[in-house]
Amino acid sequence: MTTRPSGRAPDEMRAITIETAFTKHAEGSCLISFGDTRVLCTASVEDRLPPWLRGKGQGWVTGEYSMLPRATHTRGSREAARGKQSGRTQEIQRLIGRSLRAVVDLKKLGEHQITLDCDVIQADGGTRTASISGAWVALRLAVNTLLESGAIKEDPISSKVAAISCGIHQGTPVLDLDYIEDSAADADANFVLLEGGQIGEVQATAEGATYDEEGLLRLLRLARMGCDRIFEAQEKAVA
Amino acid sequence: MTTRPSGRAPDEMRAITIETAFTKHAEGSCLISFGDTRVLCTASVEDRLPPWLRGKGQGWVTGEYSMLPRATHTRGSREAARGKQSGRTQEIQRLIGRSLRAVVDLKKLGEHQITLDCDVIQADGGTRTASISGAWVALRLAVNTLLESGAIKEDPISSKVAAISCGIHQGTPVLDLDYIEDSAADADANFVLLEGGQIGEVQATAEGATYDEEGLLRLLRLARMGCDRIFEAQEKAVA
Amino acid sequence: MTTRPSGRAPDEMRAITIETAFTKHAEGSCLISFGDTRVLCTASVEDRLPPWLRGKGQGWVTGEYSMLPRATHTRGSREAARGKQSGRTQEIQRLIGRSLRAVVDLKKLGEHQITLDCDVIQADGGTRTASISGAWVALRLAVNTLLESGAIKEDPISSKVAAISCGIHQGTPVLDLDYIEDSAADADANFVLLEGGQIGEVQATAEGATYDEEGLLRLLRLARMGCDRIFEAQEKAVA
Amino acid sequence: MTTRPSGRAPDEMRAITIETAFTKHAEGSCLISFGDTRVLCTASVEDRLPPWLRGKGQGWVTGEYSMLPRATHTRGSREAARGKQSGRTQEIQRLIGRSLRAVVDLKKLGEHQITLDCDVIQADGGTRTASISGAWVALRLAVNTLLESGAIKEDPISSKVAAISCGIHQGTPVLDLDYIEDSAADADANFVLLEGGQIGEVQATAEGATYDEEGLLRLLRLARMGCDRIFEAQEKAVA
Amino acid sequence: MTTRPSGRAPDEMRAITIETAFTKHAEGSCLISFGDTRVLCTASVEDRLPPWLRGKGQGWVTGEYSMLPRATHTRGSREAARGKQSGRTQEIQRLIGRSLRAVVDLKKLGEHQITLDCDVIQADGGTRTASISGAWVALRLAVNTLLESGAIKEDPISSKVAAISCGIHQGTPVLDLDYIEDSAADADANFVLLEGGQIGEVQATAEGATYDEEGLLRLLRLARMGCDRIFEAQEKAVA
Amino acid sequence: MTTRPSGRAPDEMRAITIETAFTKHAEGSCLISFGDTRVLCTASVEDRLPPWLRGKGQGWVTGEYSMLPRATHTRGSREAARGKQSGRTQEIQRLIGRSLRAVVDLKKLGEHQITLDCDVIQADGGTRTASISGAWVALRLAVNTLLESGAIKEDPISSKVAAISCGIHQGTPVLDLDYIEDSAADADANFVLLEGGQIGEVQATAEGATYDEEGLLRLLRLARMGCDRIFEAQEKAVA
Repeated sequence: MTTRPSGRAPDEMRAITIETAFTKHAEGSCLISFGDTRVLCTASVEDRLPPWLRGKGQGWVTGEYSMLPRATHTRGSREAARGKQSGRTQEIQRLIGRSLRAVVDLKKLGEHQITLDCDVIQADGGTRTASISGAWVALRLAVNTLLESGAIKEDPISSKVAAISCGIHQGTPVLDLDYIEDSAADADANFVLLEGGQIGEVQATAEGATYDEEGLLRLLRLARMGCDRIFEAQEKAVA
Repeated sequence: MTTRPSGRAPDEMRAITIETAFTKHAEGSCLISFGDTRVLCTASVEDRLPPWLRGKGQGWVTGEYSMLPRATHTRGSREAARGKQSGRTQEIQRLIGRSLRAVVDLKKLGEHQITLDCDVIQADGGTRTASISGAWVALRLAVNTLLESGAIKEDPISSKVAAISCGIHQGTPVLDLDYIEDSAADADANFVLLEGGQIGEVQATAEGATYDEEGLLRLLRLARMGCDRIFEAQEKAVA
Repeated sequence: MTTRPSGRAPDEMRAITIETAFTKHAEGSCLISFGDTRVLCTASVEDRLPPWLRGKGQGWVTGEYSMLPRATHTRGSREAARGKQSGRTQEIQRLIGRSLRAVVDLKKLGEHQITLDCDVIQADGGTRTASISGAWVALRLAVNTLLESGAIKEDPISSKVAAISCGIHQGTPVLDLDYIEDSAADADANFVLLEGGQIGEVQATAEGATYDEEGLLRLLRLARMGCDRIFEAQEKAVA
Repeated sequence: MTTRPSGRAPDEMRAITIETAFTKHAEGSCLISFGDTRVLCTASVEDRLPPWLRGKGQGWVTGEYSMLPRATHTRGSREAARGKQSGRTQEIQRLIGRSLRAVVDLKKLGEHQITLDCDVIQADGGTRTASISGAWVALRLAVNTLLESGAIKEDPISSKVAAISCGIHQGTPVLDLDYIEDSAADADANFVLLEGGQIGEVQATAEGATYDEEGLLRLLRLARMGCDRIFEAQEKAVA
Repeated sequence: MTTRPSGRAPDEMRAITIETAFTKHAEGSCLISFGDTRVLCTASVEDRLPPWLRGKGQGWVTGEYSMLPRATHTRGSREAARGKQSGRTQEIQRLIGRSLRAVVDLKKLGEHQITLDCDVIQADGGTRTASISGAWVALRLAVNTLLESGAIKEDPISSKVAAISCGIHQGTPVLDLDYIEDSAADADANFVLLEGGQIGEVQATAEGATYDEEGLLRLLRLARMGCDRIFEAQEKAVA
Repeated sequence: MTTRPSGRAPDEMRAITIETAFTKHAEGSCLISFGDTRVLCTASVEDRLPPWLRGKGQGWVTGEYSMLPRATHTRGSREAARGKQSGRTQEIQRLIGRSLRAVVDLKKLGEHQITLDCDVIQADGGTRTASISGAWVALRLAVNTLLESGAIKEDPISSKVAAISCGIHQGTPVLDLDYIEDSAADADANFVLLEGGQIGEVQATAEGATYDEEGLLRLLRLARMGCDRIFEAQEKAVA
């Protein structure tokens, strides 16, 4: 039996905490933690839409992502100073936007744009999955204010959405990789799941090893367990 | 029974052609076509490595991707003129690099860097999967020259690698989406597979609809059929 | 007698809190609050120096500053996405670096670079002064670890340094402007002071009105009162 | 008598081939070859004009140019990745635009913009002259579709235009330099000529040696011979 | 008694000259010299306003600043070639704009934008203060043309504005630092003053040493003397 | 007989003045005027070379060019603010570098780099030709200081070099176009000539009309007359 560096069981997640209203200006916000990974998620509602959507009677949901320079073990350079966002950053923020749009009816949202800013305060593996999971909470809170103010009539959100990473560590499928495991994993997969277990997105990458159909399914089942835990935490946070 | 816009059967791929040595300067090159999608793939061998790899006794394989401005139905702006690569471009070129590295032993490659340039001459859906499949051919040819010249001693390539897109079109899982299907698909998945069916990478995205475990497996099985066809074409091309 | 929008007396500051070790990776860190203004300050120690300082037997202290996009009432665009830092950002980060260097003996620091990252989590006026005041705490903590590990022998920090804004609001000099006052102030001045009342930097700008020598002195005296309060909070934080 | 590295006579051009309709989306396209130099030229018709031309009852013709990274003997970095176009690239694309505008009546073109994209697939000297010569073919084909559809009434193209390089190689004026000659030439001149021999543009640069009036005239006469050959190839291609 | 490197008395300024109409296209222009520091200042009047000011019945005054690459002792790189303006440049051009707006009634200016370009031809310390002082002359001349043409009815300029640097050199407060003094000064302050001695802006920075209230006042009084001299030169220039 | 807008005869140049030592820091400098066109040219000598030339026992001569924003009739945006140099700017600075290198023996120059900065103070047509002609003077002066100091032994400059524009204005070939003529010219040619009439570079562009061999020769002969006048002015300036 393998031992995870953290001593966790293969299907054991890190502690999840979600602190809502972490900042006061945003229409919705939370600080989400997956263990030592902490991400500030805010949802900003604006009336202006991207040019290609204007006048179409629908809204838009988009994501932005960043790591504070010293969120990580050693300081990374600031993307604003370098003058461009890395490929990794762009890949993650595209994923955040797609994942949230998977549960939003853009017609019901009306001509509003909601931007989900996910800023990583501290990183210890799983920043993109914490970002998606926290962004849903911020989005839910922001949409609630739109519903309460009468700005929109029908709830455009059809389901919760959460994300979790799984991987194969020393031959064993494990749930919710921290930084140490992530660096050493043979294969790494991020799952974006909806309530009921429907798949929003799978991004599974073999690193060092490849995996077969069976391996993929085992990871998917772990992910389902993990997302159920996150859905509970989300439920409690927005109650 | 649904009818695909192209009239193809659900598990029917487009014609695959691979024309090697399409350009004369590159150590390896081919023009790969998946139907009307045509990508020029070149492999360039250089002695300089990225700074973080120097002196470690290993090599590197990386990918770059671009669409010619008028590869598409309407002209897109040139990324060099805009002054930056889009998030989509960066996402794809990171995928190309990862996919090829999955079958290369970087130690055996020695201190060489191989850059796989995938330039889309004409686009009709599936440009990233054609790129990966063609890049393998260019890589294989370039590595052959290194082996022949004695620059490296052992073959660093452990398997073929190919990629194909699948999707759910009007409720039916279909193989190798062209542009019209891709625009209308409910869900879209790109699979990078190795010989023997091992999974290199899965990127499955729900758009409009989500899918369940069963759906994911059906797409994976289609992808396996498709990649077997591509492996044959690769084999013939490098023979 | 004028009434400040917040109901504070002219010489009354907002509550100051400093929570140290807010993040775990940085050699020194704190979350500083001036009322609703909250800034995360981290000090990162690195061995590499800017090229023009290498081999001169001294170190360097520099600052970087950023606002999270939704730190403000309405969302601002992300500088990393726009591809450049605004003039305001650059002005502030230059000020942070100069202010801290005013109390550091770079020879005693040895060949280490300390970067002070000030990331504004929530903004309500005075973000640059909170940044400088919090950066000192992060710096102090980071230098303590260098002293404890024996990496440096003598304490390079000669004094505390703190900063506060003052302004003329409806004719009355007031201390520690919040966002509402700042927007309406006739004149606005930021003071960087050292223990004992020595001046590190003055940046006083007339907006709408100008002021005379007497006005400048009154603001300086308010600033001195304010900085004494900050020095106490800093002392408690690093104790 | 000097011997050219290629064994060609001083006034002998490389084989010219023009393959039209090389890509299917563009309103006009061709792959032009001058020996081993191969350039894909596409003409894209759009209804939007640059801001300074809107509402003036005329159209616009412009050019863009790029080399694929491995078009050359050794791989060059990708301009999109570097984030800017080189001075050389900009100089060439400005030349392409001017050269084609010299034979187009912009009033007769109506409010259409035609962009001529010249992407060098393989380079062996003379890429800018092949680009201009091929761009004319793509333009001619695109304008034909506008005439056929009735979008414009009168043919706006007044003449063919072609370009060729000449140079002084080991003291002898030679026509159509390939890469080896170009690298070693004492003087290098690019001529853009119209049918009938009128001059559209001359760019003659002394490198290592200068030349006199007589030398310039000898090159011009060689260029005239060369362009007559290109006019024939263009005629055949668009027939 | 200290000796300044230039042999000047502590309160002695360098020769000031202002040559108006140095260039012919600008609505107002001058070449201002503070000793060997020479700055070309032009005022350009345009009808277009920044987007956030359109239709508000007021105008705008803004500044831009640049050093020619060889204005300095050793050549600096060209900001246009590097692709961005330095933090120092941006800080100075923001200061120029603010300083001039302090004496302009933007309502009376009407919907005109005046851009003050300050290009340093030769630098020997004090380039930002010479820029502000010269920019006022260019602005005055440009506004005169607007008044003469009837484009505006009332004079929007309420006062002269001038700027001067002071510093503490070897313990002595001195006026109008040249490059050698500036490099060696213990403290350095730039004052922007209005006629009558009102303060527009103070930017006082301790470098190496700090200063106290008394020190700040002594520098302010020197600055007042210096600005009186500049006001005389401005008066003569625009007469 | 045509009348030029300026009243000049077809072969009449504008007044040429060259004021040397216009700035004090550069190793060579002059302010050159062709009528109302005024360009500040400086030559800066540095010991560092571009990477690809290091250790080859030779030097380098390069040019940079810029227009001050209000050198022109209406204000142009500042390239440093826009973040990139225009294609026109890059084309001109490449031309300046090539033109000067045509008369410099880089071996004799030794391992020095000379940068010729040409900054247009005021523009009235012909800024690139004035730049080249003035750059030669700055170069000559800078090389003289290298010879005098013994830093180089042999004079690397083999000839004067000058440049002039010619054009066809209302059917008549004319010399030295000013802005009004340049805007209206049917054809426009810039010639870079060496003493003795050797051609360094020809850039002849048809605009509106094309020209034939005879027309090109007539312009070349005018250019020769013009350059002889410039050579005289250069000779006097450096005497």
